[in-house]
Amino acid sequence: MATLGFVEYADASAEVRSIYDDIMSTRRTDWINNFWKALARDPVTLRRTWESVKQIMAPGALDPLMKEMIYLAVSATNQCAYCIASHTAGARGAGMTSEMFAELMAVTGMANETNRLASGYQVEIDGRFKT
Amino acid sequence: MATLGFVEYADASAEVRSIYDDIMSTRRTDWINNFWKALARDPVTLRRTWESVKQIMAPGALDPLMKEMIYLAVSATNQCAYCIASHTAGARGAGMTSEMFAELMAVTGMANETNRLASGYQVEIDGRFKT
Amino acid sequence: MATLGFVEYADASAEVRSIYDDIMSTRRTDWINNFWKALARDPVTLRRTWESVKQIMAPGALDPLMKEMIYLAVSATNQCAYCIASHTAGARGAGMTSEMFAELMAVTGMANETNRLASGYQVEIDGRFKT
Amino acid sequence: MATLGFVEYADASAEVRSIYDDIMSTRRTDWINNFWKALARDPVTLRRTWESVKQIMAPGALDPLMKEMIYLAVSATNQCAYCIASHTAGARGAGMTSEMFAELMAVTGMANETNRLASGYQVEIDGRFKT
Amino acid sequence: MATLGFVEYADASAEVRSIYDDIMSTRRTDWINNFWKALARDPVTLRRTWESVKQIMAPGALDPLMKEMIYLAVSATNQCAYCIASHTAGARGAGMTSEMFAELMAVTGMANETNRLASGYQVEIDGRFKT
Amino acid sequence: MATLGFVEYADASAEVRSIYDDIMSTRRTDWINNFWKALARDPVTLRRTWESVKQIMAPGALDPLMKEMIYLAVSATNQCAYCIASHTAGARGAGMTSEMFAELMAVTGMANETNRLASGYQVEIDGRFKT
Repeated sequence: MATLGFVEYADASAEVRSIYDDIMSTRRTDWINNFWKALARDPVTLRRTWESVKQIMAPGALDPLMKEMIYLAVSATNQCAYCIASHTAGARGAGMTSEMFAELMAVTGMANETNRLASGYQVEIDGRFKT
Repeated sequence: MATLGFVEYADASAEVRSIYDDIMSTRRTDWINNFWKALARDPVTLRRTWESVKQIMAPGALDPLMKEMIYLAVSATNQCAYCIASHTAGARGAGMTSEMFAELMAVTGMANETNRLASGYQVEIDGRFKT
Repeated sequence: MATLGFVEYADASAEVRSIYDDIMSTRRTDWINNFWKALARDPVTLRRTWESVKQIMAPGALDPLMKEMIYLAVSATNQCAYCIASHTAGARGAGMTSEMFAELMAVTGMANETNRLASGYQVEIDGRFKT
Repeated sequence: MATLGFVEYADASAEVRSIYDDIMSTRRTDWINNFWKALARDPVTLRRTWESVKQIMAPGALDPLMKEMIYLAVSATNQCAYCIASHTAGARGAGMTSEMFAELMAVTGMANETNRLASGYQVEIDGRFKT
Repeated sequence: MATLGFVEYADASAEVRSIYDDIMSTRRTDWINNFWKALARDPVTLRRTWESVKQIMAPGALDPLMKEMIYLAVSATNQCAYCIASHTAGARGAGMTSEMFAELMAVTGMANETNRLASGYQVEIDGRFKT
Repeated sequence: MATLGFVEYADASAEVRSIYDDIMSTRRTDWINNFWKALARDPVTLRRTWESVKQIMAPGALDPLMKEMIYLAVSATNQCAYCIASHTAGARGAGMTSEMFAELMAVTGMANETNRLASGYQVEIDGRFKT
């Protein structure tokens, strides 16, 4: 079926294979996870998404571990089961300990709580926060 | 009006004042932002929320800057204008540079994008992510 | 401009006026809030939405106050500023006290927090909850 | 168990059967999907929801394919697995090709990303957009 | 693996056991559901979360049934499958009938709909709602 | 202030000006809206975001009007006020009539409602939708 299904490396076009190769070499791994194999049904989206992720997740002012943890905080907020599973693995691979995971979840949970207290109480933005 | 409105320090009960004092001394600041002044209409919620935030945001396996940035990523994901304004200020106070802010937003935006690509493409969780 | 703008009673068609009249008599009030005046640009949506709201919010197994409070909990969760303002007014008109509001917000905030802890920790549904 | 469970055609009341018949004839199909069989536990909700969906999804200024694709974009945004599955099937039945699906997902993903960049950067609405 | 996994009573520390005991005695039940067993990997989060939930869900201006139903409305809004399952069970245990469940879902669904109509139509908050 | 603030054309670097020029020529307009002027504080994000938006929103299997309407449906779902305002303008510029807007909002609202009915009723995905 065209709409659903994964593109395995053995079945991929040369263009898709070159992206798969770049994913594996950039991440120093020997396999491609399902997310990319699903996007590969549309090589344009596969390329754009990978190029963006590669640029954004590279070391910079924030290190890769911190970036993976931010990714996980957003994914937990959005209830994206696939993304939670893949970025939990990614963050652990980048060095997240159990203690860091626990604190990450605590902050994520609390932010989701106070986001609703702020909206529900109709709190106006303080003048000092606008400058 | 009882439901909406802020509790200023001058009008606060002894119980609320003691919490305000703890907020200011913990944060090394001399003012209380509107979020707490709104919650103070219900001292039980004020106390519980502050005690939780105080515990969660203290230095631990993650440093306070990283925690503020995670808070901001969640708040941007949830479109909470108040929280975005207050935690942008908080993160900058904790040392977030413009470069760090830009990368934080880039990761937050990308995570929100791929969260929907993963769900829309109905991507199944890889076996390797389940172990 | 057609897309944005409100339909005031004085300018409304007979069809729209009859819906406005029903809104005011059902709610025992003498004015129409902006939500309905915006929807009135599309009388089909105005009628369907009002008929649905009228049916759903009528007294039944749950009383009108409880229904307004549920509406407010959802609106705070979704960060809909208009809906928070209108349903806070609606709930107070139906008898919500300051104490009830505070507890409603506390539950709403906590639910938003534990929703993310459950997803982030990848908690599996207990067998007992499936029967 | 009353709260969970589906109402099969063979077990349905005359009222529920008449709605099931209308769903099948409107959609030119010979089966009822689980969503309606779950709602049928509450015939009032079943009727209101079906009447609203029937009215909204009928051809109008937008054709049925476009409406199904909008439905899918919202469902992917909300992480509703059931709705994604059912409206992907619905959109494909209405003529969505693989190329259209890929572009739909690309737009949905990008909108979710820029929604957060706009909020995170605290971008003010341009005066030209308000007129 | 440390990050994923549950802490069973038999394997729990004295501190975790005392919290489990309090959960069971407060809820008058003889088992611990997976949510708490997952949080127990981090006793600090387990204790804080349980103490907050215990305080918030106790009878007050709102009764426990109403609180469970609000929890369920939020969980359905957020698409948290675990939370929907556990709080449906909780609400039914607290007395929610099939009729109450149906009305709860109807209000939750409608609120989610009108939240988007209000935002999409860019409805301004009425002056009367601000006072 | 570095973190907040817009980059006007007159103050922009050559790199940012070239992107602004491309935005204006691609969109056949003579001004830059605030979203881009905010992103321009980080030229890397400005370039990547614009290149992605330019690629995704170009005519393809879906026409530009349909793409703008999908963008608007997502933005209304996410309560992003800025994005709703800018993409309402964009969709109208691409030919969206008042009738099309009304139907778009009706579908968006209904999808948000049934997304929660499906989750709240814990509806299982039909076998036919999985093939």
